[in-house]
Amino acid sequence: MFQLHPRLEADTFSVCQLTLCEVRLMDDQRFPWLILVPRRADITEVHQLSLEDQQQLMIESTLASKVLEQQSQPDKINVAALGNVVSQLHWHVVARQQSDSCWPGPVWGCGERQPYPEDASTALCSALQRRFHDV
Amino acid sequence: MFQLHPRLEADTFSVCQLTLCEVRLMDDQRFPWLILVPRRADITEVHQLSLEDQQQLMIESTLASKVLEQQSQPDKINVAALGNVVSQLHWHVVARQQSDSCWPGPVWGCGERQPYPEDASTALCSALQRRFHDV
Repeated sequence: MFQLHPRLEADTFSVCQLTLCEVRLMDDQRFPWLILVPRRADITEVHQLSLEDQQQLMIESTLASKVLEQQSQPDKINVAALGNVVSQLHWHVVARQQSDSCWPGPVWGCGERQPYPEDASTALCSALQRRFHDV
Repeated sequence: MFQLHPRLEADTFSVCQLTLCEVRLMDDQRFPWLILVPRRADITEVHQLSLEDQQQLMIESTLASKVLEQQSQPDKINVAALGNVVSQLHWHVVARQQSDSCWPGPVWGCGERQPYPEDASTALCSALQRRFHDV
């Protein structure tokens, strides 16, 4: 049975549920950063998903990319599945600005996470929920 | 018209052509590292591809992941589209070992690229070509 990995749960906020994935917001105010977690048990690699699930993941990744573009007008979207630390398959969609503190390097392993103030994360999750609904 | 970006051409070797993508081997012997470049002009983001092309990219990414698993029995496959340095859309498929010099961090921005000796890259490209043919 699918259960969100405790480390992912601790580092992120719930945004919404899509057909395949839970959408979470990374608690790091340096980057608008969504994490899509397919609700499939015991999967660690994208290529372990069924073809149908892979194709749904692409649809949901595109949705998340468009939501972040609308929300923060980034210079670039980075998408990735790494999983070197938390093995449960999770898909990063990160809005990057050329002015952000890790540009042009990747966000993973760059500096320290900067958690949102509580009211800011609540407001951002609500704004993102509305965009996922409308996009 | 699609033309491979000169920086990608300089840093990689040709492996084969798939339906959508050129498959290239990154010239870095630290990691078995494939780069898939969709033959589509003026595309910088995965979500700019048509739905059909996105789904083909997933099929070819899975193929590349399985080829790398057969070739090098990695602990993990990392897949990503970053494009912060070279904007032409290119898809990384990287075989990672827990013993590699960047683990558990990402390969991008980690240390210096270590080019293959010429005979090693030729032999590896041939081996990979055979695996793409057979997989």
